[in-house]
Amino acid sequence: MAPKNAFYAQSGGVTPVINASACGVIQTAQKYPEKIGKVFAGKNGIIGALREELVDVSTESDEDIEGLKSTPSGAFGSCRYKLKGLEDNKAEYERLIEVFKAHDIGYFFYNGGGDSQDTANKVSQIGEKLGYPLTCIGVPKTIDNDLPFTDCCPGFGSVAKYVAVSMKEAGLDVESMCESSTKVFVLEVMGRHAGWIAAAGALAAENEGDAPHIILFPEVKLDKEKFLVRVEECVKKYGYCCIVASEGLQDQDGKFLADAGTKDAFGHAQLGGVAPVIANMVKDALGYKYHWAVSDYLQRAARHIGSATDVEQAYALGKAAVELAVEGKNAVMPIIVRTNDEPYQWELGHANLSEVANVEKMVPADYISEDGFGITEKCRKYLQPLIEGEDYPAYEKGLPKYVRLKKQLIDKKLPKFDV
Amino acid sequence: MAPKNAFYAQSGGVTPVINASACGVIQTAQKYPEKIGKVFAGKNGIIGALREELVDVSTESDEDIEGLKSTPSGAFGSCRYKLKGLEDNKAEYERLIEVFKAHDIGYFFYNGGGDSQDTANKVSQIGEKLGYPLTCIGVPKTIDNDLPFTDCCPGFGSVAKYVAVSMKEAGLDVESMCESSTKVFVLEVMGRHAGWIAAAGALAAENEGDAPHIILFPEVKLDKEKFLVRVEECVKKYGYCCIVASEGLQDQDGKFLADAGTKDAFGHAQLGGVAPVIANMVKDALGYKYHWAVSDYLQRAARHIGSATDVEQAYALGKAAVELAVEGKNAVMPIIVRTNDEPYQWELGHANLSEVANVEKMVPADYISEDGFGITEKCRKYLQPLIEGEDYPAYEKGLPKYVRLKKQLIDKKLPKFDV
Repeated sequence: MAPKNAFYAQSGGVTPVINASACGVIQTAQKYPEKIGKVFAGKNGIIGALREELVDVSTESDEDIEGLKSTPSGAFGSCRYKLKGLEDNKAEYERLIEVFKAHDIGYFFYNGGGDSQDTANKVSQIGEKLGYPLTCIGVPKTIDNDLPFTDCCPGFGSVAKYVAVSMKEAGLDVESMCESSTKVFVLEVMGRHAGWIAAAGALAAENEGDAPHIILFPEVKLDKEKFLVRVEECVKKYGYCCIVASEGLQDQDGKFLADAGTKDAFGHAQLGGVAPVIANMVKDALGYKYHWAVSDYLQRAARHIGSATDVEQAYALGKAAVELAVEGKNAVMPIIVRTNDEPYQWELGHANLSEVANVEKMVPADYISEDGFGITEKCRKYLQPLIEGEDYPAYEKGLPKYVRLKKQLIDKKLPKFDV
Repeated sequence: MAPKNAFYAQSGGVTPVINASACGVIQTAQKYPEKIGKVFAGKNGIIGALREELVDVSTESDEDIEGLKSTPSGAFGSCRYKLKGLEDNKAEYERLIEVFKAHDIGYFFYNGGGDSQDTANKVSQIGEKLGYPLTCIGVPKTIDNDLPFTDCCPGFGSVAKYVAVSMKEAGLDVESMCESSTKVFVLEVMGRHAGWIAAAGALAAENEGDAPHIILFPEVKLDKEKFLVRVEECVKKYGYCCIVASEGLQDQDGKFLADAGTKDAFGHAQLGGVAPVIANMVKDALGYKYHWAVSDYLQRAARHIGSATDVEQAYALGKAAVELAVEGKNAVMPIIVRTNDEPYQWELGHANLSEVANVEKMVPADYISEDGFGITEKCRKYLQPLIEGEDYPAYEKGLPKYVRLKKQLIDKKLPKFDV
């Protein structure tokens, strides 16, 4: 019997290293020709499976597949498309199984965050219910670093490095001019519910007085008065004050400071613009000259300053996903298990998708300093190794050489399905 | 007779490479001990001279001075402080000469943009008028790239590289998710009057259809209708649209869009920033999901992605400033003279400060495409070499090793002077 084919898809917000995981999946699958046939990637994630828009990855060159290791974004396309519960929308799950049947797909590798691991788990259930054997393996990915069990999530380390480096650089900039110019600088970073990225900004401060001076976590409701007192203290003591603010920062009533009212496909509020709110709050109360930055997608696409640790783990988890499948595991997700802080040592493990799905790992209370404006030594110890090592892409004419895949679709075998 | 000492100061907005120029000045001055005695750096720029707050650079370690080549910000402190005209505030000029006399300073190296070159020119005049011989040399610096005569300005190449790389990365991100998520992305960049940085964003587009699709220059008043038509065309053709918008973008009446006081769809005031204004304009007219980023100081501090060409030129101009002084030139500024586009070749020249002062070099009309939304081939040829080459700082524990100088002040000899 010919070996079953595999389906791989990227899901949710992309990262600087999700393509490194793709590379790990693809290159490892090719090492088990007796177990895995072709690898088909979904064009634009799970939408590609529903629409039967599949890319046979063997039609891409080996160089391009290798180049995925250092290419940000989702090279096959990703999507914000959440499958509903099995009962609410069984048709979509049945369609997936139909497509998988049509293309003799026996492996389902789903590269995403919490929502996506939930989807992978549901797909594994429907396969069972419909009597179509399917090996479902999640591949963790999220810059938010909020998946449970795993020491960290691929994507986070690189974003953390970007934010720490950027804050360090902007901090030096502000410091060097604060005598006669800007005194308060606010950097807004991603992290709707979990403040891991904001926490990473604190790594920029290596010595007493270094920027950033204040971290505003989504886990800590903003005490405006206490915050303004702290800003004033910093400016008086250091001449300036740098603040890292999470996009998910809430006021005392639990309302997002940046809430614009829009929602994304998952029903989550679309945030953005907390930095100008904070900057104006400071200006109104204290009169300081301010500047603010919103790095938005720049932070999660910044492969040029990728963390070598992160890249290595992203690849290793893609590879591990295939190895778990080949070993006969099902409905699991490979994870990073930390075995030592310094030097950082880690090994691979795995967790059950049913336990991973839709659990958000917040920054724990003992990682946040007592005043709520900084990180503890414990948090620093956790974060430090994740940004270590540089892994630069190749450059040509001053720009990184990022891969653009051909993404040629294979012939369809089924009727159209509207998504 | 002992050789005269030199004064060096950083002025105006700092850059990723102004310290490389400082390094060029300091290391070169040390090569002419028979002509130049000590080098004193002003703490916080010219304010340091007025307050007699001077750093004897020989008290800094050679390693730290060498490390300035790869450290962003102004290591001695910079300032936004413009000396008035000679007639309006002669006292300040006289104070400068007093301080220079007190510390036997015969050389004045002023590292800044247009305003600063104007100051350097005035200082050279007052020295003459008061019968105190002073050699005044400007060292060009500005991310805005708007100084005349020189092929480009140190600082610009690195910011250009940062913006081009960031736009390329964010463009891939948006492209990979546009099927089901963000369709329009706006990156706001610096450049209040001259659109050089915005133009550099266009380098990210290497092939037809690549991001960015639209550049909004301060030199081109926004035609809202034409702009929206173009956005819609892009989304229909490519699935998404990426826009680089200059902070100095103006509407048809010449009003800055960032000052427009617009409200978003939900009645919330937009608190500054041209990017959110543009993004909301698109959302209101076309309904597309958007994201926006404001890189602000991140762009001008991003030494981690510095252009090797820029770093080399910044150092060379600092070195040339000292060499011009030693040769007996006065009231001049060294410049970059381009001798070939591809491969890029350049040599050093110099211009008179009186002709440099307060002239702003805008992006010329034949560098902007006919429709006003992009750059011409001529512009690309000009910009391309300026972002070439990577010059990475050293890293330790995941962060760049940037130099923090001791900045110990020498003893004062004069009464206090209020600034």
